[in-house]
Amino acid sequence: MIDLSCDYNDGAHPSVLEALIETNMEKLPGYGADVHTERAADLIRKACGLPAARVFFLSGGTQTNAIVISAMLKSYEGAVCAATGHISLHEAGAIELTGHEVLPLPETEGKITAAALEKFLRDARADGNRDHMVFPGLVYISFPTEYGTLYTKKELTALHNVCRSFDIPLFIDGARLGYGLGSEACDLGLPELARLCEVFYIGGTKAGALCGEAVVFTQDNMPAHFMTMVKQRGGLLAKGRLMGVQFETLFESDLYFNICSHADAMAMKMKRGLRALGIPLRINSPTNQQFPVFEDSILPELEGKLAWSFWEKPDETHTVARLACNWATRPEDIDGLLDLLREALNK
Amino acid sequence: MIDLSCDYNDGAHPSVLEALIETNMEKLPGYGADVHTERAADLIRKACGLPAARVFFLSGGTQTNAIVISAMLKSYEGAVCAATGHISLHEAGAIELTGHEVLPLPETEGKITAAALEKFLRDARADGNRDHMVFPGLVYISFPTEYGTLYTKKELTALHNVCRSFDIPLFIDGARLGYGLGSEACDLGLPELARLCEVFYIGGTKAGALCGEAVVFTQDNMPAHFMTMVKQRGGLLAKGRLMGVQFETLFESDLYFNICSHADAMAMKMKRGLRALGIPLRINSPTNQQFPVFEDSILPELEGKLAWSFWEKPDETHTVARLACNWATRPEDIDGLLDLLREALNK
Amino acid sequence: MIDLSCDYNDGAHPSVLEALIETNMEKLPGYGADVHTERAADLIRKACGLPAARVFFLSGGTQTNAIVISAMLKSYEGAVCAATGHISLHEAGAIELTGHEVLPLPETEGKITAAALEKFLRDARADGNRDHMVFPGLVYISFPTEYGTLYTKKELTALHNVCRSFDIPLFIDGARLGYGLGSEACDLGLPELARLCEVFYIGGTKAGALCGEAVVFTQDNMPAHFMTMVKQRGGLLAKGRLMGVQFETLFESDLYFNICSHADAMAMKMKRGLRALGIPLRINSPTNQQFPVFEDSILPELEGKLAWSFWEKPDETHTVARLACNWATRPEDIDGLLDLLREALNK
Amino acid sequence: MIDLSCDYNDGAHPSVLEALIETNMEKLPGYGADVHTERAADLIRKACGLPAARVFFLSGGTQTNAIVISAMLKSYEGAVCAATGHISLHEAGAIELTGHEVLPLPETEGKITAAALEKFLRDARADGNRDHMVFPGLVYISFPTEYGTLYTKKELTALHNVCRSFDIPLFIDGARLGYGLGSEACDLGLPELARLCEVFYIGGTKAGALCGEAVVFTQDNMPAHFMTMVKQRGGLLAKGRLMGVQFETLFESDLYFNICSHADAMAMKMKRGLRALGIPLRINSPTNQQFPVFEDSILPELEGKLAWSFWEKPDETHTVARLACNWATRPEDIDGLLDLLREALNK
Repeated sequence: MIDLSCDYNDGAHPSVLEALIETNMEKLPGYGADVHTERAADLIRKACGLPAARVFFLSGGTQTNAIVISAMLKSYEGAVCAATGHISLHEAGAIELTGHEVLPLPETEGKITAAALEKFLRDARADGNRDHMVFPGLVYISFPTEYGTLYTKKELTALHNVCRSFDIPLFIDGARLGYGLGSEACDLGLPELARLCEVFYIGGTKAGALCGEAVVFTQDNMPAHFMTMVKQRGGLLAKGRLMGVQFETLFESDLYFNICSHADAMAMKMKRGLRALGIPLRINSPTNQQFPVFEDSILPELEGKLAWSFWEKPDETHTVARLACNWATRPEDIDGLLDLLREALNK
Repeated sequence: MIDLSCDYNDGAHPSVLEALIETNMEKLPGYGADVHTERAADLIRKACGLPAARVFFLSGGTQTNAIVISAMLKSYEGAVCAATGHISLHEAGAIELTGHEVLPLPETEGKITAAALEKFLRDARADGNRDHMVFPGLVYISFPTEYGTLYTKKELTALHNVCRSFDIPLFIDGARLGYGLGSEACDLGLPELARLCEVFYIGGTKAGALCGEAVVFTQDNMPAHFMTMVKQRGGLLAKGRLMGVQFETLFESDLYFNICSHADAMAMKMKRGLRALGIPLRINSPTNQQFPVFEDSILPELEGKLAWSFWEKPDETHTVARLACNWATRPEDIDGLLDLLREALNK
Repeated sequence: MIDLSCDYNDGAHPSVLEALIETNMEKLPGYGADVHTERAADLIRKACGLPAARVFFLSGGTQTNAIVISAMLKSYEGAVCAATGHISLHEAGAIELTGHEVLPLPETEGKITAAALEKFLRDARADGNRDHMVFPGLVYISFPTEYGTLYTKKELTALHNVCRSFDIPLFIDGARLGYGLGSEACDLGLPELARLCEVFYIGGTKAGALCGEAVVFTQDNMPAHFMTMVKQRGGLLAKGRLMGVQFETLFESDLYFNICSHADAMAMKMKRGLRALGIPLRINSPTNQQFPVFEDSILPELEGKLAWSFWEKPDETHTVARLACNWATRPEDIDGLLDLLREALNK
Repeated sequence: MIDLSCDYNDGAHPSVLEALIETNMEKLPGYGADVHTERAADLIRKACGLPAARVFFLSGGTQTNAIVISAMLKSYEGAVCAATGHISLHEAGAIELTGHEVLPLPETEGKITAAALEKFLRDARADGNRDHMVFPGLVYISFPTEYGTLYTKKELTALHNVCRSFDIPLFIDGARLGYGLGSEACDLGLPELARLCEVFYIGGTKAGALCGEAVVFTQDNMPAHFMTMVKQRGGLLAKGRLMGVQFETLFESDLYFNICSHADAMAMKMKRGLRALGIPLRINSPTNQQFPVFEDSILPELEGKLAWSFWEKPDETHTVARLACNWATRPEDIDGLLDLLREALNK
């Protein structure tokens, strides 16, 4: 069985586990006050080139989105995002549970445009009825998007400029950030991206860690008493070292970037292979997730041999699948996938 | 430096880490649908002797309290607890953030009585103004309490009977459950305790795991769509295996009980030693946390040699400290502590 | 100055004020336990032909929407509504503040279709990821809609049937209910409408009262302890008589229906006049609100002579206005409006 | 039947009703933008001697408390109040529903002391665990208290000074403010009281109006977008004139003060009479509510002749009643009450 169903189906990168073992018997204070958490934050600040940034470690993506967004918004404000944004569709209403509306914008392959954002913000401010409407208080984008696509440096700069001109923070969901930065199609480095937003996070859960997302407030703009807000929302782990040690390992060398680039390379190998087989792609994703359009007739052939995720049904006879690579994906997994598909197509 | 400041200053028990390593390369589905999580739930059901119980793994105590309480209450209901209860004082208002009042009862050494509970519930129901008051909708106790004390089987039975007669669920915060069950003073086993409440949790974070609390709904009474509620509140880890593997390890043998009994035994050794030194104890705790009353004059002697936690100042010249044992506490740590104190007292 | 800017720019119908004066010196219990509130509820039950219905009086529309919706939903459920629904756009996020998502459906002139609703509900239930998505828990429609349009009996029956088949309650926002029922285009009576939903409200604020909305749970399905939930959300008036007396007056005769029919008749007179003048209508509204499309060039001519509301700008040179009639609108107001427009057009 | 059960059992003062009639046919904009609301705010600013104060009208006490407190607190802050405070006991958890804890202080006859407050705030700030505890973010007192008692100018000044030194706003619940200011025992005027807090409200519902509370932010410190927050919480009436006209009437002369003084005078007449009859008073209240301690044996004699409220049972054979006066209480009502009691006692 080849399992490409998602990028969180393996454990942690071996180096991460080794670090947990090595540090296991150290007596460390709780709640993130330990040296590994501090060093991890330092390493991330250095990788971002932002000495004044504030870094906070949380355990998962939905938790991070809900805590960051609710901490940055006033009660009457909402979060603008692409209609396909993760917070809009797949987080079970976690943002609304904190009392805030998600304000969806039209998107193309998961991306919103600066022009559409500017129009939306201008209308929201100009509206004569604005006292009766939710104020846009933050703009949320994901990088890569839920479709694996990337904003270019130019596009991100334009979005950030719009946010700046309306004095609204830009928040980047980086649950898969490494796969974005590691893509050959990406024209941005981490320091550039960090300068083009007010807050973002570096996803660990889907990129080599057992759990953990590193939230980066880029300009000493972490809300006051953020730790207490995290505690209130159940996000503060007693053994904060669990996240500290993992991120320390991922960032004390180029490990984080290397494993993500590897996964992207595996995905590009997959993409080339799919194309060679004549299998269309729903989206031209340059990152670790690929979205092939399968004829439904081949699906029974894959049963028990390939684990994949259902994405959507574009019509009655086709199915879009999601296939994901991660640090543990090997070239032979991709070869196996392609062999399997070739066989199925030839039946 | 001897560090007895808390019971979460070490990593995981080595067997737990080993299991994480062994299972690391298995391809497993996310969100708790993996075989280890399922097996951990089975093992816990077996340990409780409750085949119909439902088990759900969360990552920390405050998260667990907030999710379980909010899932079981209606909007106009509150949680009754001891005035010293963790949810009342030290969770930064996490319960109130979910919209529910915490209704404090007078306590003695962290424990409430069935008589006081019955009177409170009766008054709350009888009150002519009850439409204008919060309804008690759940009773929360901790076992052991925040002071390390234990309810006897008789006391817990009485509390549960009161709850039953008012048709209100009893919820036991077991963040340190093992230390309670492992105490020589405890006259209850896990199956008995499980039968005396509607929901409880088995704390892993403070007892051998890196993180994780196993919530047990004892009577197939898990609220419908509980998983979605967990997702909404940011408690659903993508790599649910992290908790599943740890609890599987703790419960596939008697590991959980053994490490907790060990810690309790270390604490009893400490208690005997403290008494022998003539150091009074704030509370007669039979579990892993001890609360010696130090003369302030000896505190400077401990600096740099002992890590302890501040508990409270009973008067101008004394300080109550908290000293905690866990799976990693060795007899020589206790001996070292006692030597240190003997020396300090003799100065 | 002719003021047709909205339907809440006058006080109460004189009969309503008289009743407040007549009952003013009666000593009455608070919080809705008075005889007038009880009688108003009886009269409404009778008007609906639903002896088992439960009636509760609240003070305004947004309050009513937030209280009813939050009382009927579980935490992980959301309210489905037309994308143009009042709760989606113009209530400042009041529903989200209670923790629930508003799930927008495409609409035409403010109306959703049974087919679109059925597809949405079926997809929501079928989705493999549904544990990670908000559950549709209630369907909200407004009657008349925000555009003044009406569901036909057939359309409403179809919507209700879909709701029934998914076991989801249908909630009708009747802030302007009387103007719907009073319209010549309406093929439904109050008893029929009441049978085609689980809960609805009869708007008083915009139809003859100073304030007040009568919520009707049609099938003895008022949530338990609803009064306490109302208290919690700040909707319980100490002098509940204020609403009781007003609704008693509106429903002890046909007053409520008569004043709404009158307003609709005035609106139809306006519509005929606008058409005669060649002024296009944005929407063909059969109720008390009309939406003429003015050339921007005539707007300066109206200044100081006509109070109207801005609705939207369809293009650079036109403006859609909202003009509303209520119980106090006189034929001469409409004549005055038409004279004014005729004059402006001829300049 | 003499009805002294509460101070909201009558309608509005006749002058208030007359003003509603006189202004009824005026065309006025909605949501508080009308001239009467503006003038009412001006009159209140003038009465307070605070030209920069911001005034906002809401419809009831619980609504006001929940909106003001939630608007002024950060998510991790709570409201300090007397353990007997209305928000702590009798508002069905409305404050907690907004996500904030109520932090109770010990009280005497409903009053807290500056010394106790200072100690509480100092401890809260000093606590080593403060990141895990709710921050006190606002101090709530009621004037008069729930027991009818009053803070002296000296006591209020001391409380305010403590609040100032900790930079925490003081919020005075004035649901019965007029009865406090109108009491002979009160050594404060409205301007003095207004200067000793950051925000307070002038209760209309219980003092001559049909509904309405005037919130006064004393120092141009109304939270930004307060109107939108009011809308979100369902407190914004479309016909804002309802509150504007009533408060305009109450404050364009000394009407508000006169009717409250009258009620206090009636209460003092009652108090003297009760004492002359040898009926003890639970509390020495100088305001419109009195709390006689009745022997249970006389209660049957009062049945059908006197409407009173149950307050509490101090022992098995006595009952504390609440008897309240308002603008409509006549000397002959008090005489009737005293005759009734005299008769009952002599049986």
